[in-house]
Amino acid sequence: MKNYIQPNEWKIVEEGFDPQLNKISESLFSIGNGRMGQRANFEETYSGETLLGNYVAGVYYPDKTRVGWWKNGYPDYFAKVLNAANWVSITISIDGETVDLHDAVVSDFKRTLHMQEGYLERQFTAQLKSGKQIQVVAKRFCSIADDELAAIHYQVKAVNFSGTIAITSAIDGDVKNQDSNYDEKFWDETAKQYTDETLFLTMTTKKTAFDVCTAAFTQVSVNGKDIAPDQESIQKDKFISNAFNVTVQQGEVVDIYKYACNVTSQNYEKDALQDAAKKAIARAQDKKFDGLFQDQVAAWAAKWVESDILIEGDVAAQQAIRFNIFQLNQTYTGADARLNIGPKGFTGEKYGGSTYWDTEAYCIPFYLATAPQEVAKNLLIYRHNHLQKAIENAEKLGFSGGAALYPMVTMNGEECHNEWEITFEEIHRNGAIAFAIFNYIRYTGDAAYLAEYGLEVLIGIARFWKQRVNWSAEKNKYVILGVTGPNEYENNINNNWYTNILAAWCMRYARESAEYVKTTDAARYAEITGLTSFNEQQEFADWTSIADQMFYPYSEKEQVFLQQDGYLDKEQMLVSDLPASDRPLNQKWSWDRILRSGFIKQADVLQGMYFFEDDYDLDTLKRNFKFYESRTVHESSLSPCVHSILAARLSDEEKAYEFYLRTARLDLDDYNNDTDDGLHITSMAGTWMSIVEGFAGMKVRDNVLQFNPFLPSQWNSFTFSMGFRGTQLKVKIDASQISITNFSAQEIEVAVFNQRYTIKEGEQHISYNELLV
Amino acid sequence: MKNYIQPNEWKIVEEGFDPQLNKISESLFSIGNGRMGQRANFEETYSGETLLGNYVAGVYYPDKTRVGWWKNGYPDYFAKVLNAANWVSITISIDGETVDLHDAVVSDFKRTLHMQEGYLERQFTAQLKSGKQIQVVAKRFCSIADDELAAIHYQVKAVNFSGTIAITSAIDGDVKNQDSNYDEKFWDETAKQYTDETLFLTMTTKKTAFDVCTAAFTQVSVNGKDIAPDQESIQKDKFISNAFNVTVQQGEVVDIYKYACNVTSQNYEKDALQDAAKKAIARAQDKKFDGLFQDQVAAWAAKWVESDILIEGDVAAQQAIRFNIFQLNQTYTGADARLNIGPKGFTGEKYGGSTYWDTEAYCIPFYLATAPQEVAKNLLIYRHNHLQKAIENAEKLGFSGGAALYPMVTMNGEECHNEWEITFEEIHRNGAIAFAIFNYIRYTGDAAYLAEYGLEVLIGIARFWKQRVNWSAEKNKYVILGVTGPNEYENNINNNWYTNILAAWCMRYARESAEYVKTTDAARYAEITGLTSFNEQQEFADWTSIADQMFYPYSEKEQVFLQQDGYLDKEQMLVSDLPASDRPLNQKWSWDRILRSGFIKQADVLQGMYFFEDDYDLDTLKRNFKFYESRTVHESSLSPCVHSILAARLSDEEKAYEFYLRTARLDLDDYNNDTDDGLHITSMAGTWMSIVEGFAGMKVRDNVLQFNPFLPSQWNSFTFSMGFRGTQLKVKIDASQISITNFSAQEIEVAVFNQRYTIKEGEQHISYNELLV
Repeated sequence: MKNYIQPNEWKIVEEGFDPQLNKISESLFSIGNGRMGQRANFEETYSGETLLGNYVAGVYYPDKTRVGWWKNGYPDYFAKVLNAANWVSITISIDGETVDLHDAVVSDFKRTLHMQEGYLERQFTAQLKSGKQIQVVAKRFCSIADDELAAIHYQVKAVNFSGTIAITSAIDGDVKNQDSNYDEKFWDETAKQYTDETLFLTMTTKKTAFDVCTAAFTQVSVNGKDIAPDQESIQKDKFISNAFNVTVQQGEVVDIYKYACNVTSQNYEKDALQDAAKKAIARAQDKKFDGLFQDQVAAWAAKWVESDILIEGDVAAQQAIRFNIFQLNQTYTGADARLNIGPKGFTGEKYGGSTYWDTEAYCIPFYLATAPQEVAKNLLIYRHNHLQKAIENAEKLGFSGGAALYPMVTMNGEECHNEWEITFEEIHRNGAIAFAIFNYIRYTGDAAYLAEYGLEVLIGIARFWKQRVNWSAEKNKYVILGVTGPNEYENNINNNWYTNILAAWCMRYARESAEYVKTTDAARYAEITGLTSFNEQQEFADWTSIADQMFYPYSEKEQVFLQQDGYLDKEQMLVSDLPASDRPLNQKWSWDRILRSGFIKQADVLQGMYFFEDDYDLDTLKRNFKFYESRTVHESSLSPCVHSILAARLSDEEKAYEFYLRTARLDLDDYNNDTDDGLHITSMAGTWMSIVEGFAGMKVRDNVLQFNPFLPSQWNSFTFSMGFRGTQLKVKIDASQISITNFSAQEIEVAVFNQRYTIKEGEQHISYNELLV
Repeated sequence: MKNYIQPNEWKIVEEGFDPQLNKISESLFSIGNGRMGQRANFEETYSGETLLGNYVAGVYYPDKTRVGWWKNGYPDYFAKVLNAANWVSITISIDGETVDLHDAVVSDFKRTLHMQEGYLERQFTAQLKSGKQIQVVAKRFCSIADDELAAIHYQVKAVNFSGTIAITSAIDGDVKNQDSNYDEKFWDETAKQYTDETLFLTMTTKKTAFDVCTAAFTQVSVNGKDIAPDQESIQKDKFISNAFNVTVQQGEVVDIYKYACNVTSQNYEKDALQDAAKKAIARAQDKKFDGLFQDQVAAWAAKWVESDILIEGDVAAQQAIRFNIFQLNQTYTGADARLNIGPKGFTGEKYGGSTYWDTEAYCIPFYLATAPQEVAKNLLIYRHNHLQKAIENAEKLGFSGGAALYPMVTMNGEECHNEWEITFEEIHRNGAIAFAIFNYIRYTGDAAYLAEYGLEVLIGIARFWKQRVNWSAEKNKYVILGVTGPNEYENNINNNWYTNILAAWCMRYARESAEYVKTTDAARYAEITGLTSFNEQQEFADWTSIADQMFYPYSEKEQVFLQQDGYLDKEQMLVSDLPASDRPLNQKWSWDRILRSGFIKQADVLQGMYFFEDDYDLDTLKRNFKFYESRTVHESSLSPCVHSILAARLSDEEKAYEFYLRTARLDLDDYNNDTDDGLHITSMAGTWMSIVEGFAGMKVRDNVLQFNPFLPSQWNSFTFSMGFRGTQLKVKIDASQISITNFSAQEIEVAVFNQRYTIKEGEQHISYNELLV
């Protein structure tokens, strides 16, 4: 665990330069705008340890699968989030001596992520070997107001010398992915050009043939006087730059402004790309840095109005939750239904493919509450767009008749994971995708979504489950064999309780949804049943029959749902029995030992009880929570939030807070020694859930927004913003009351501890004393 | 299935040249001598489809593991049997036109593997594009009498022209493995030299630094007149050759003799290698081709005396069994305890590492009966030599205190497989290794082996099982969780019946063996208990207690042992329900579907009943055989032989013969479309077992050799050679009697259908009528 980030309510601050921490900081200080993003690599040359990362959303490379032994049905490739052209490069040379913090004496180094305004700032003083000193202040951001654009303002001050500063501003496309399976480079150059002092580099991805044109215009001035660049650009393979030579007197400051853009063939015809880039650069030249910056601050202010959480009395917690919200908002804006939320967002290469079940199970609740309804809807439509691919994916595994198995990992709807125990067996993802539709409608009330998009997806998913079960003559029930649940410390198990309840629920929900559409929109229903060759009578009967006769493992002795068949045959060690030196298990134990043990990566029985909380009474929840919590090592970043929410439900406020802490600062404190790879973006939504669904007990039941709040004793109060069905709310919870501010003219009914209140425009205080009466 | 091999009792014959079949034939016509071997690649240039393969026993490369996601405990590499320097290369050029069967009109092509004499012959007529015709007869062998040596006699006749024949004789070390994980070459050149008209090329393997010196001396003559080679050799990177230019008149024949040797740093100091090669070549020059050939024929004659099986009345079966025996004898001679039997022997690269459990479960019985006792003993000592590595392997997985887990695949004792479900879970191999010790002593009576080597291995194995079980409070028994049995169409199952019985047996046998050594050799026992820090009282008690309380899954309803927990939850489809178009499952079904189905790759319950046949009555065997046979798809080449033996035991002669047929011609008929990769060497021992243990019902019980023979109705008789405790026997089974010839002065007691007979030197006939009385 690291502890070098300075506490601050609105900023992430690193003071002093420690090369050992640089890759961690590159992740932490990442910036993005949903369309592109990058790690906090230095603009100037750096020959120390660094992981270069510039990413363009939706642009990927299908890297040939690397496995020991091929199994039938494996996907051909693992999609890789691509390291794209590096446009931040600004090389500085003082009288021929390159500025490189690896070789310089660095002082006054400070890196700041301004979360409120959405920009990255870095300042330092570097003394070169020659003794010459410069002071640098660099600011940059990816514009969230104009998502093709990014800007840098890089200032160099000649502290103790007069001389020549040579500046080279580059676009370097000769990059590679650290996680390339076969050490290949993924890009080919298509074109480059230097015109109107603007650099253009167009590259195309191998195999997938995405074209990306990156352009950059650089303006250099001293004392307000512009310096003209050299007439000729410097061109190499996949590289283009232009250079400026500036003569400075001691004490003078050179201002470098660099405007860059990325435009892709996803949004433009390939032959129109350079022109689109030119227009983007022109917009930047027009607005200038200050204008772009103003737009950025305004856009972020709007985001914070929708999604901020204010915590009084705990700076570390305050910083952490804002960091999580900031990163989520940087990663996905909901503007484009073709995009999704990679587990590492724009902060690293790991986990390659963009979309996991994380999106449906963890991210959707965050975006439902903190962004316009279209944002979560676009995440659902993403899966609808991939329905045909999901059907093909199921066909590869031997299913038929429109059964859809959504991929475990995907970029374009095709499966691209390559472990059989995940790809073929972790089929619970199909359930989470159906649940997200339910959850979206429960929150938004937009039941028309079923007719519009949802029902087709639900039919495909229900058909999959229907074929995936088999009848066990031995058990006289339907069983689901050979699965991996969310607890990935088990593989190829039978009757995973979570998968079985989810499968049965999916079949019932698909039928209910079909009946709803049939009743409310007969014409569309006819269209869908035609499109899907739906045999209503037979399929309804099958789904109901299977759901009614599904087998659920249960222990009479322990009075708990059993995670899977035979779970109690395992040695029933508890986490409290584990020596600290054995943890984390995934680093200290062999895979074989982990699999055989009863220890749980994330407790899927509890995940199921979280999804379907209304189906279980508190005693049942309590027994299962106690049983599973004591066996769970939380070695998935997605694990603690569910425990936090359930502990809150069980009024175990201490445990709820403890689990919240486990993820809130996961990256800021580099808790798992892996932040250098990138941030745990999707689990950040879980932290938000801990506060809003856990501490505030927010949920929607029967179209009513409910709160069952408590205040962690470590805090004075917490306040979160949320939207609900056309209203924008601010909810403040302190020791004595819950205060709800309704910013909309539209009134809204809420329940607090099951008492109903009508919240009109303005602020209403509900004291807990009042509730106790 | 192919059907192009001509039936012949002693020869494998291919007539006519079909390039489509070339890679299959390269496998089938492979030759070797236990120390080196090669595929039947052409001597002359061939630009068509070919898989070049020259192998030197024990020389391997640790190819970096290729996996999708790393799991703790994975081995770093997968050992690769190395394609080594190609020394057969003899390039022929007629007036500047290269002879290449890919470009020539080929007639009278015939390839013959002379199994009785142990050599490969090939003849053809080739008409080049120029119209010039040559006739070629090529013979070659790897000397089994002098296993560093190999020889070629290559004759070229100028059929219709007079002109110049340019001959280049090469050693080409610039080869690679087709299955290289990262497309690397595995060899570096160390030295090359051309001296005394002899080519020397010394190469070293990357990482493992095995040096191999390959040398070749070539002699060319026309009409008995020697042709001198060019003075200078041709040298390139990893390549050396010398050339001869011969002027011929129409009808003249050029004789090319090439003597080659491989010597390795396993047997010589590195700086003495070239000298050793020089001496080997000198031996060849001294004996000449004819002398070496005479030695070869004599050595093979001796092998056939020990191991031949004669089948009267069925040429295809005769050819097949001799082919299997021939290949086994080519692959392993037992001369060196550092060597073992790779699943593909010297016929291909597949399966990389040399040693699998195939050796103990299938090959040991063959070598026990057909070779001197030392041969099987060396196979056991191989594992004893790896004991420390097996202990380290177990430690990597979290075991301690001298517990030994032998690797699933190995070259040097280190595990080198890379699928977790195999490497970590297919632990039954540990049982087969213990069983082989038992089997060796049962057959040979050499109980002193326990004190000498066996007990240490058994203690390590028993300790592993002791730690690998866990107590199930639920079942009130010891269980073994998370294993893969020999049926690899299941992964990560619990309580695999076969593994559980084997584990319990191992612990009991280790205790019995320890008690035996304690009684018979107290001093050595003290030494072993000291070396292994053996806590006799505690460990004996643990082993017995666990063995006595082991859980064995059983179905009351079906009255069969259950392959694993929950097997009956699967859909109980039978193989007879499977459409032909679905088979083989491993090519037609996704892995996911295979795993979920009840279909069995090889039936491990039956494997266990084969090992421990005396523990089960015939009714029990019959029920289990019927149950599992109907669910087994035999997609392991190791599967049918066990079914054949058990069917014979159940007097189901038709089924016994049917299963025998499934493997006997597996490669000759390319039954599985994979012979091009190499031959199924280890499963060939299973074919031998079908005849000797199945049809003849040979076994050893209470130190007595027993036979319970039957004659397949398709045959007139069968006769096999075997050795038993100092006697050499020939056993002939025909329709009316069993005839046993004892070639030794020592008499031997045998039981035929449980009646005892004393067989003195000479032949004794035992009529079945007599037995029926």
